Amino acid sequence: MDREKLSRMQQQFAFLLEMDKEKMVTRQTPISDNSRKENDAEHAWHMAIFTLFMSEYANEEIDKLRTLSLVLCHDLVEIYAGDTYAYDEEGKASQAAREAEAAERLVAMLPPDQGEWLRGLWDEFEAYETPEAKFAHACDNIQPAMLNHATNGVSWEEHDINLSQILNRNARTGEGSSDMWEFSRNFFIEPHVQSGEINNK
Amino acid sequence: MDREKLSRMQQQFAFLLEMDKEKMVTRQTPISDNSRKENDAEHAWHMAIFTLFMSEYANEEIDKLRTLSLVLCHDLVEIYAGDTYAYDEEGKASQAAREAEAAERLVAMLPPDQGEWLRGLWDEFEAYETPEAKFAHACDNIQPAMLNHATNGVSWEEHDINLSQILNRNARTGEGSSDMWEFSRNFFIEPHVQSGEINNK
Repeated sequence: MDREKLSRMQQQFAFLLEMDKEKMVTRQTPISDNSRKENDAEHAWHMAIFTLFMSEYANEEIDKLRTLSLVLCHDLVEIYAGDTYAYDEEGKASQAAREAEAAERLVAMLPPDQGEWLRGLWDEFEAYETPEAKFAHACDNIQPAMLNHATNGVSWEEHDINLSQILNRNARTGEGSSDMWEFSRNFFIEPHVQSGEINNK
Repeated sequence: MDREKLSRMQQQFAFLLEMDKEKMVTRQTPISDNSRKENDAEHAWHMAIFTLFMSEYANEEIDKLRTLSLVLCHDLVEIYAGDTYAYDEEGKASQAAREAEAAERLVAMLPPDQGEWLRGLWDEFEAYETPEAKFAHACDNIQPAMLNHATNGVSWEEHDINLSQILNRNARTGEGSSDMWEFSRNFFIEPHVQSGEINNK
């Protein structure tokens, strides 16, 4: 192996090892047996499984490879910036600055061509404009709703969540998949308004 | 939503929820800070990140979407069959039968078109013939070697592993990527033969 290739590989493997820290970023969503909370790597994997099996419900046809790239990488900045809970208004105020700084660090670890590619993924996800980004956001919102439902809404109850907060968070979920959003609202969210884990206000 | 579509979605969401159990299948490989062992969902996600950033080193050009599908789904049978450690000869004797039964159960959960697609992924991975399957196997072997190296070889030492067992396991790793296998052998494995966590026999 020539020196240039070896140097590139060393840089890439150092990045791949650093990515392992995604497994240490804990989210607020419990896994389905409620034994513990899930982490970012598990969440991204689960979103990728959603993409593989639910893409037929995207409002517009999506490029599956691009969508998988988005969902697999969308939370990498949290390795340095930490997870910001969807209903943590204080945390969300500083989120953009923390994540921008984290993005710089991550991009700098990669060869320039790959760093730019990764930055392009984040920019596309944040811009929320392409069919792939819209579908990725739908998965990002519906996957935790499915797990919150499976664990009897304990996470919603624990954080004293109002229905209006959930609807606000999901204001654009239907743009990615109106079918999946309808399903999520009817089967994952509404029952917990009825039974009280979600405050009806 | 018409009744047929709703029924299909209910079946698919039940499958997606069942897939959450992949997060409960523990492997023998420690995560990089050695605080705990990784699980199958994390391992599959990490292999997908390998695929996104290392496909340039595949011996033959690979279809990235197909390769991602393979790595994301290759361990799903372990939800019912459990993880079989690479150097557990007793477990490996019953592995094929356990995994075939698990595959039947999983396929039956899905609409027939998707069940067949999933079975096709497993068959391709097991057959080890396509460039995508070969690259997926390379990631499946090199990702844990990277983590074993990062944790000072504790997992190799704990299981009293010989170099010949590792080389046997990796007999075909170079078919997916001779470059990545060379790197893994030189930088992840060899140092631990020198320092004794891997038995030199």
